[in-house]
Amino acid sequence: MKRKTRIGLVTSGGDCQGLNAAIRGVGKSLFQYVDNIEIFGMYDGYRGLMERDYKFMEPSDFSGIIAQGGTILGTSRQKYIPGKAIVDKDGNDMMPAMLDTYNRLNLDCLVILGGNGTQKSAKLLKDAGMNVITLPKTIDNDIYGTDQTFGFQSAADIATSVIDYIHTTALAHSRIFLVEVMGRDAGWLTLTAGIAGGADVILIPEIPYDIEKVASLIEARKRKGRTFSIVAVAEGAISKDDKILSEEERRKKKDANPHSTISYDIAAQLERLTGQEARVTVPGHYQRGGPACPYDRVLATRFGTAAARMIMNREYGYMVGVVGDEIVKVPLDEAASRTKFLPVDHPLIQTARDTSTSFGD
Amino acid sequence: MKRKTRIGLVTSGGDCQGLNAAIRGVGKSLFQYVDNIEIFGMYDGYRGLMERDYKFMEPSDFSGIIAQGGTILGTSRQKYIPGKAIVDKDGNDMMPAMLDTYNRLNLDCLVILGGNGTQKSAKLLKDAGMNVITLPKTIDNDIYGTDQTFGFQSAADIATSVIDYIHTTALAHSRIFLVEVMGRDAGWLTLTAGIAGGADVILIPEIPYDIEKVASLIEARKRKGRTFSIVAVAEGAISKDDKILSEEERRKKKDANPHSTISYDIAAQLERLTGQEARVTVPGHYQRGGPACPYDRVLATRFGTAAARMIMNREYGYMVGVVGDEIVKVPLDEAASRTKFLPVDHPLIQTARDTSTSFGD
Amino acid sequence: MKRKTRIGLVTSGGDCQGLNAAIRGVGKSLFQYVDNIEIFGMYDGYRGLMERDYKFMEPSDFSGIIAQGGTILGTSRQKYIPGKAIVDKDGNDMMPAMLDTYNRLNLDCLVILGGNGTQKSAKLLKDAGMNVITLPKTIDNDIYGTDQTFGFQSAADIATSVIDYIHTTALAHSRIFLVEVMGRDAGWLTLTAGIAGGADVILIPEIPYDIEKVASLIEARKRKGRTFSIVAVAEGAISKDDKILSEEERRKKKDANPHSTISYDIAAQLERLTGQEARVTVPGHYQRGGPACPYDRVLATRFGTAAARMIMNREYGYMVGVVGDEIVKVPLDEAASRTKFLPVDHPLIQTARDTSTSFGD
Amino acid sequence: MKRKTRIGLVTSGGDCQGLNAAIRGVGKSLFQYVDNIEIFGMYDGYRGLMERDYKFMEPSDFSGIIAQGGTILGTSRQKYIPGKAIVDKDGNDMMPAMLDTYNRLNLDCLVILGGNGTQKSAKLLKDAGMNVITLPKTIDNDIYGTDQTFGFQSAADIATSVIDYIHTTALAHSRIFLVEVMGRDAGWLTLTAGIAGGADVILIPEIPYDIEKVASLIEARKRKGRTFSIVAVAEGAISKDDKILSEEERRKKKDANPHSTISYDIAAQLERLTGQEARVTVPGHYQRGGPACPYDRVLATRFGTAAARMIMNREYGYMVGVVGDEIVKVPLDEAASRTKFLPVDHPLIQTARDTSTSFGD
Repeated sequence: MKRKTRIGLVTSGGDCQGLNAAIRGVGKSLFQYVDNIEIFGMYDGYRGLMERDYKFMEPSDFSGIIAQGGTILGTSRQKYIPGKAIVDKDGNDMMPAMLDTYNRLNLDCLVILGGNGTQKSAKLLKDAGMNVITLPKTIDNDIYGTDQTFGFQSAADIATSVIDYIHTTALAHSRIFLVEVMGRDAGWLTLTAGIAGGADVILIPEIPYDIEKVASLIEARKRKGRTFSIVAVAEGAISKDDKILSEEERRKKKDANPHSTISYDIAAQLERLTGQEARVTVPGHYQRGGPACPYDRVLATRFGTAAARMIMNREYGYMVGVVGDEIVKVPLDEAASRTKFLPVDHPLIQTARDTSTSFGD
Repeated sequence: MKRKTRIGLVTSGGDCQGLNAAIRGVGKSLFQYVDNIEIFGMYDGYRGLMERDYKFMEPSDFSGIIAQGGTILGTSRQKYIPGKAIVDKDGNDMMPAMLDTYNRLNLDCLVILGGNGTQKSAKLLKDAGMNVITLPKTIDNDIYGTDQTFGFQSAADIATSVIDYIHTTALAHSRIFLVEVMGRDAGWLTLTAGIAGGADVILIPEIPYDIEKVASLIEARKRKGRTFSIVAVAEGAISKDDKILSEEERRKKKDANPHSTISYDIAAQLERLTGQEARVTVPGHYQRGGPACPYDRVLATRFGTAAARMIMNREYGYMVGVVGDEIVKVPLDEAASRTKFLPVDHPLIQTARDTSTSFGD
Repeated sequence: MKRKTRIGLVTSGGDCQGLNAAIRGVGKSLFQYVDNIEIFGMYDGYRGLMERDYKFMEPSDFSGIIAQGGTILGTSRQKYIPGKAIVDKDGNDMMPAMLDTYNRLNLDCLVILGGNGTQKSAKLLKDAGMNVITLPKTIDNDIYGTDQTFGFQSAADIATSVIDYIHTTALAHSRIFLVEVMGRDAGWLTLTAGIAGGADVILIPEIPYDIEKVASLIEARKRKGRTFSIVAVAEGAISKDDKILSEEERRKKKDANPHSTISYDIAAQLERLTGQEARVTVPGHYQRGGPACPYDRVLATRFGTAAARMIMNREYGYMVGVVGDEIVKVPLDEAASRTKFLPVDHPLIQTARDTSTSFGD
Repeated sequence: MKRKTRIGLVTSGGDCQGLNAAIRGVGKSLFQYVDNIEIFGMYDGYRGLMERDYKFMEPSDFSGIIAQGGTILGTSRQKYIPGKAIVDKDGNDMMPAMLDTYNRLNLDCLVILGGNGTQKSAKLLKDAGMNVITLPKTIDNDIYGTDQTFGFQSAADIATSVIDYIHTTALAHSRIFLVEVMGRDAGWLTLTAGIAGGADVILIPEIPYDIEKVASLIEARKRKGRTFSIVAVAEGAISKDDKILSEEERRKKKDANPHSTISYDIAAQLERLTGQEARVTVPGHYQRGGPACPYDRVLATRFGTAAARMIMNREYGYMVGVVGDEIVKVPLDEAASRTKFLPVDHPLIQTARDTSTSFGD
């Protein structure tokens, strides 16, 4: 009798659009092509793996979920000591518990869906001896080794829609409108939504801004009769005068004041410098919710089915990615090695400048 | 030869959805039924009337605009001394200038589209001898004498959509999510979006909240396994411990700190009381933008065509309103006399309680 | 010990938006206010009642469903001999089976969510001795005794959005565009979407059209430089030359050719009469799907909580309705007595005419 | 004194989403970087070029249009004799008239936005001696030399949304639902929307279907308890029994019966073969309308700014395209040489099969 193939599914980190499409891609492929397949869906990410809390999944669990927001498995953020360990709140290394679940369930492979941090933690699992395949999910698009992550285009759609709506109301008032866009320390999301929404100014972490230049630009617009200006502000935008922080310092600062939003400060500065009223919109987690856009559903489905194929070929230790239009296998060590920031010579930055958008630099 | 009928159109105050549908209703009716009609569209609300800055409108100006956000005429907020005068920034009474435009253009009537404040200022124009008909536009739904204002349902749709999206992401995290909804000092918008979005807690100005009760409720949910809670917070929500401010004091406070948003404070309080993380979304002006929803388009069209009919009958000095499903004429003195707050015994408040939503009282 | 209260929930007929909001309203209220409540959710409408196929519902079943399209209980259309019986496909009366389930489960009341036909069939259950409360659900808005049904506004939103999108493409072509809107034999949906979408022509069953008048109107538009025309066609629209059919004859005709859509014929006629190209869009069941709009969610929640209150008061034999803004109890005999067509003197018809829309009459 | 640079803008063929974004990209770039630029916007495509009917465009014409559906210039379909001539309705060659406009206006280059047919006609203009740069616009994605055309993703979003909504209603009924998707003779749009919407069956021109296989599949689903099936049907889908038509024969057939939609026939066949009811949705031109999705806005902006750069470099005779993520110049002779059908070994077809979708082959 042919032995069983046993797979664990884990969605880890902040959730985003497309998780269910990817899960569905993995599950539908495996049930179609692999005899004796068993799939264990871990509840709430690594927590389920630590506590052996899972759902034994049937084929029907993978039906009718492609348009559903969130994740059918739940997720959680895990405390993580960079490059060292996944720990509980008391600092205990949780690797033994996870390895124990992996072994007891006799798993062939874990498929882990996660963002930047998850690539790093998944590498630890790989280093501890587990077979791991990861899928790149994040609205931030900041994962090294893939051109695109799923969730990104869906979030860009929402942020653009916010800018669009602000536009119709802005036309009627003589004001500055700031829209704070997510994306952590990378500017991908703000740049894309800013171009698509026709923002007048785009402030991103990769191009520190000069507030006086931003103010002059708004005043120049006013002189030309454009009575309003729309500024797309990345949550991680930094001023030329800011001290450059390391990733760890940034994280600490954020932890110290999780509700800080940079836009209110910029709004106050611009009001002072230009004499115009400014208004702030913070769409926040709205950008991570709702159904995935069709682009992300197709991308996530491709990622999911590619992972299934890799399982069939016993190709472990990779993140699935896309380069150009081709699905690629990225060694997990590489994917986990760094963050993919927006290169300052990226063609999209030039595209924005070509359509008269300023970066305040 | 039959004399001409001359009408001025004014959109005043903050913009909202449905203005163009209402304008279209007025214009299409008048051009269809009244010979020798001339319509003057004042640019930027009262400013156009003060400075005789207008567009002489053709029938084609009223075509193809029903789905367009904003207002084709522009709007502006005017400085207004309650019950006394509309003034420029130096405090000069602008009534003579407006009366002058009215007389020089030989207008039969002004149709003024505006919110709560506009009803009051329009009454001053009426008292100064101009023929005035007003239409109730505001996302706040706080105008006395009408059950509904246009803009309200469109804004409720947007705020609900934000709550919906937060819901899918909330399901995946163990957090408190606060969504700050507009509506000024009235709770209509937050209540409606809160019910439609299935918010767990709704905080509105008409029912001062007790933060400890809100915290207990969230903790009770957690004990029952509901790991997240969604709180719809009216921008004008007040705590039981807050001093009750007069309308003027509230306005002053807002002017002093236009960027203050109550939700960040509530979030910090709830984090301290419950130990759970809280996240804030401030959709802001996003709620006033974009195309009107079909409900508002129909309502605004009814209001606009009713105004046209009143012009034909020379019935001036009224605001057009709707009670139940009937279009009514509300004497402007009455419409301008007070703000329509949400009655604490309003059936919708009971509806919310019936579906286990708490007001934190 | 207090005896149990036992309720059955049935969603019957074609599905529409808002069913889950209504179900949630009933369930959340009952679990909150009634001790010892037991709720049985019948699967697939009357089928579940006939075959005693049901779900014993927990409080958690009513959570998180307000934004979900369709119905969590499933529905089915049942063969029904008007005024006489609910039968299976062999013509056997199914009342005894339903009564048997009702008695065996020892139910206090059935809450039945349905359209026009369901009001009639629910009356049969009442006449057979069961306690029944009904809720009016349909996108057609054709139920007697209530101003509004839930589902209607959601469908109007979708149909309007189709017309909106056609508008932007129509502007670029010199063509006639027909959009076929649902609504069975009543014109409510087409009229509302037609006004909201700014259709040039609206064809509804209540106002038989003259195809030559429609053609002239389109030609007159062309002469005025409007190179396109948009026609909103009710699926039940009838020409002046059509023989007037009885309800039964209409039903038979539809059964004989379920795929017939009137718009292709009208398009061919208009092409012949005007020499312009015509294009047809048939959004079909798209209009019944997706999440309910916030307006319908609030309405359905009000209906659901009102039904719960009636159960507490043992008020049976009614349909819950809304008149103006008030929730009302409509005796089921009355609600089931006739179809609510659009009165030809309805104010909305005048509103459409006031904005230059023609009915082709 | 530096001589003027004079550019003509032409939007040709059926309209689609993203035209205004592309136009804006061209205009904003040229006004920013080129001194003495003059842009002539031809009204209604080639018609404006033939009749010298144009708008002299100001910088402000390119502002605020990125989110606007349709095209600010209008478009028209021109009669075209493949490979030979652009003719008027009497068959007269219109090239001399267009050349005359080109010369009189002393144009340096025409930027022509169009689909498959337009690439071919633009080549004729090039061959006649005009400098031409084209941009690939079409919802069909069937233009040779580019991976993506703008309009495609926007249309895919709409078609997917239709399938999504049908899904919620399908869940409640035991029926077959057919959604007819545009795309002419290519299957790109149907395949993408079918994957994203989770269609059970996808019928595309590149894979002729066997109706009996489709029926068996639907019956197999039913046996497994899936009471409904969703079939995404390309408007150009062909059965295995159909005679393979040449492009010209297909065009003739379409011209002979422009209202024919294949889905009603397939629905009738499936009803006969399976005994289940089938329902048809034909979203039609709805798929070409409304605002471009953010993805298309960014793509169209990139194309537009690339065209501007080519104008600055005097690089004429190319279509702008995208391969992988790189903007490329495709010689117009090549772009016009053939139609880009979906290769039967395209990875997306495998992706669909991997998630249990059938092509009925």
